[in-house]
Amino acid sequence: MLNKLRLLTPGPTPLPEEVRLVLARDMIHHRKQDFVRVMERIQPGLQYLFGTSQQVLPLSCSGTGAMHAAVTNLFAPGEKVLVIEGGKFGERWREIAQSQKLEVVSLVLENGQAVTAEAVREALAADPAVRGVLVQASETSTGVLHPVHELGAVTRDRDVLLVVDGISAVGISPCPMDAWGIDCLLTGSQKGLMLPPGLALLALSARAWDKVRAVGPANFYFNLLAERDKSLVHQTLFTSPVNLLQGLAVSLDLFREATLEGVYRKQWALTAMARTGAASLGLDLLARTHFTWGLTSIRLPAGIDGSLVLKAAAERCGVIMAGGQGEMKKSVIRLGHMGHVDWSDVLAGLHALKTGLAAAGGYSAAKSYMEEAVHAYEEALDGGYPEMRA
Amino acid sequence: MLNKLRLLTPGPTPLPEEVRLVLARDMIHHRKQDFVRVMERIQPGLQYLFGTSQQVLPLSCSGTGAMHAAVTNLFAPGEKVLVIEGGKFGERWREIAQSQKLEVVSLVLENGQAVTAEAVREALAADPAVRGVLVQASETSTGVLHPVHELGAVTRDRDVLLVVDGISAVGISPCPMDAWGIDCLLTGSQKGLMLPPGLALLALSARAWDKVRAVGPANFYFNLLAERDKSLVHQTLFTSPVNLLQGLAVSLDLFREATLEGVYRKQWALTAMARTGAASLGLDLLARTHFTWGLTSIRLPAGIDGSLVLKAAAERCGVIMAGGQGEMKKSVIRLGHMGHVDWSDVLAGLHALKTGLAAAGGYSAAKSYMEEAVHAYEEALDGGYPEMRA
Repeated sequence: MLNKLRLLTPGPTPLPEEVRLVLARDMIHHRKQDFVRVMERIQPGLQYLFGTSQQVLPLSCSGTGAMHAAVTNLFAPGEKVLVIEGGKFGERWREIAQSQKLEVVSLVLENGQAVTAEAVREALAADPAVRGVLVQASETSTGVLHPVHELGAVTRDRDVLLVVDGISAVGISPCPMDAWGIDCLLTGSQKGLMLPPGLALLALSARAWDKVRAVGPANFYFNLLAERDKSLVHQTLFTSPVNLLQGLAVSLDLFREATLEGVYRKQWALTAMARTGAASLGLDLLARTHFTWGLTSIRLPAGIDGSLVLKAAAERCGVIMAGGQGEMKKSVIRLGHMGHVDWSDVLAGLHALKTGLAAAGGYSAAKSYMEEAVHAYEEALDGGYPEMRA
Repeated sequence: MLNKLRLLTPGPTPLPEEVRLVLARDMIHHRKQDFVRVMERIQPGLQYLFGTSQQVLPLSCSGTGAMHAAVTNLFAPGEKVLVIEGGKFGERWREIAQSQKLEVVSLVLENGQAVTAEAVREALAADPAVRGVLVQASETSTGVLHPVHELGAVTRDRDVLLVVDGISAVGISPCPMDAWGIDCLLTGSQKGLMLPPGLALLALSARAWDKVRAVGPANFYFNLLAERDKSLVHQTLFTSPVNLLQGLAVSLDLFREATLEGVYRKQWALTAMARTGAASLGLDLLARTHFTWGLTSIRLPAGIDGSLVLKAAAERCGVIMAGGQGEMKKSVIRLGHMGHVDWSDVLAGLHALKTGLAAAGGYSAAKSYMEEAVHAYEEALDGGYPEMRA
């Protein structure tokens, strides 16, 4: 009670009150007109969010379920794919591809590094049998933003599908599917969309749909063609997560009101704020040049145990952040600033970070890191976000 | 506004206020201590509900996702299973089994008929290669209750797994997994559990776990062994539907307070009430002897279009019921009385049914059908529900 709880993790994110009140509504039936109206209402908003004229399909699963659905519907066993492994979620693409018995070529990157279009071009030239590139728009485990807009230019003229996990990118940083030549874009509900987890969203390009038809149904639960047929009549194939879809309708209204450009501008400014604040505290950033706009990954000084930082930040300040993943579990702090989060939350996050550092035996002489952070926020908000052209 | 909306369908069902308020809570993180506490809290309640000492696993999917998970984890392609096809959901077992490339033997039943233990015994004797029996405890499409307690006696001494879809049975009518020799029991959140859809629950017997180990991981998203390992440390394999799990904790508290026996007694009495009311209205019931306790399937007189009945019931009385499924779409009304529904809701349902019938051109001279229905309810509540011994 004495400190408000602030969830500053890379998902789930805090929920707007408008969404929460809808989540609490009594049930409607998923095969009746009231539900059809929800489905009708969300489709234009989803297409706006995804930047696509294609149907965006809601799926009853986590984001990983949508990744599984993408791989098993788009590629037949034995086909070859190129996986960009820049962290835990790149590894997950590989594991799913292997479970579908695909042949996997991996481009393994160092932690904090983004893939380059040149490296992908070379890999495809070296291996003409590759039929898909599986990549994260934002690698949530490291906070790296891969240059998806440049990858589309490589894959769009080849017989290679660009499959993008947009879980911590959609609704956070630009990822316009059609303009960038993305063949499959997917996300989960608990990141930019400001909803609880349990709902995934997925869209395919026209040529990706052709491929799904050619591969044929591999999967009873994740049958994208059958799901699409239902979606076109404002239904879902199986019972859908009704209250999350009702919440989604509200969330999409909020996006339309703020505009995508407005949201990206805010996310860019929060990122500048978090990066400046961390740097002012004397801390290194994991992703130096290609960083995502929904979280900031901060390297801890040698000898500082991140779990102690997180513990003190939570107990003394009420701020919940995340540690690193895998080998970086205790050496990295991930400060989330996606979803229903604003500048004052990031300010609280920076104070909690300093408090946590001190509790874990660290030291920072920084006196004006908060002012510098707020200044960076205001400057970035005025300056606007960098263009990423396909 | 003039009529309250009453959802009397076979799922989703109305939600208790206690549950709805929890669904509206702001997010907690699924990898932190607050969530671990939710997982710790639900496990004993789930074991009580399922009647098992085994771990009950929450899955982020609809009930069909759990059916898919069961089949793909329990049986390797080429294995033979016996499917009890007594309606749409029996057909779904067959379709999932076929998609996993199992060899399927079907016992096809007439609408409204339950399978008999004798028929299953004969089918297994005729085909010793069968390794599993796939059945619904309650076939939601027809309202038939299959005698699962008798089937366990047939399968438990053979090398045959009894796989039970308990979607409209768990928390509605007795289905104690361990006592009845069920090898796999699964359900969804939106029926007896009084939650929105989007969460499934599944448990396996010791010998079913052995089988899962022998079959090996078939499926990245539905990997039950890996899910179990996580569950034992109060976690989930992937991001879980956090707010549904928080709602589940409240729902399970309500079950513990009311006791399972109390809930079954109520469900039995509501069933007696609905059946008596429909019969007093001069209507036939689809399931004559083996009927489920959470919905009542009512045959309409020839010439009456069920869609008109449903429409008038909704518009004039605010009562949402369901039609039949498949070929029975317009000739059957399914009056749901599971979940957070009580006698006064069923009373409203019966009045809406009469109103709908009249609007669709039907006629009933019944004058005291409501009183008869309430009397049947009270008598059944006093008398208690029939025992079903394994």
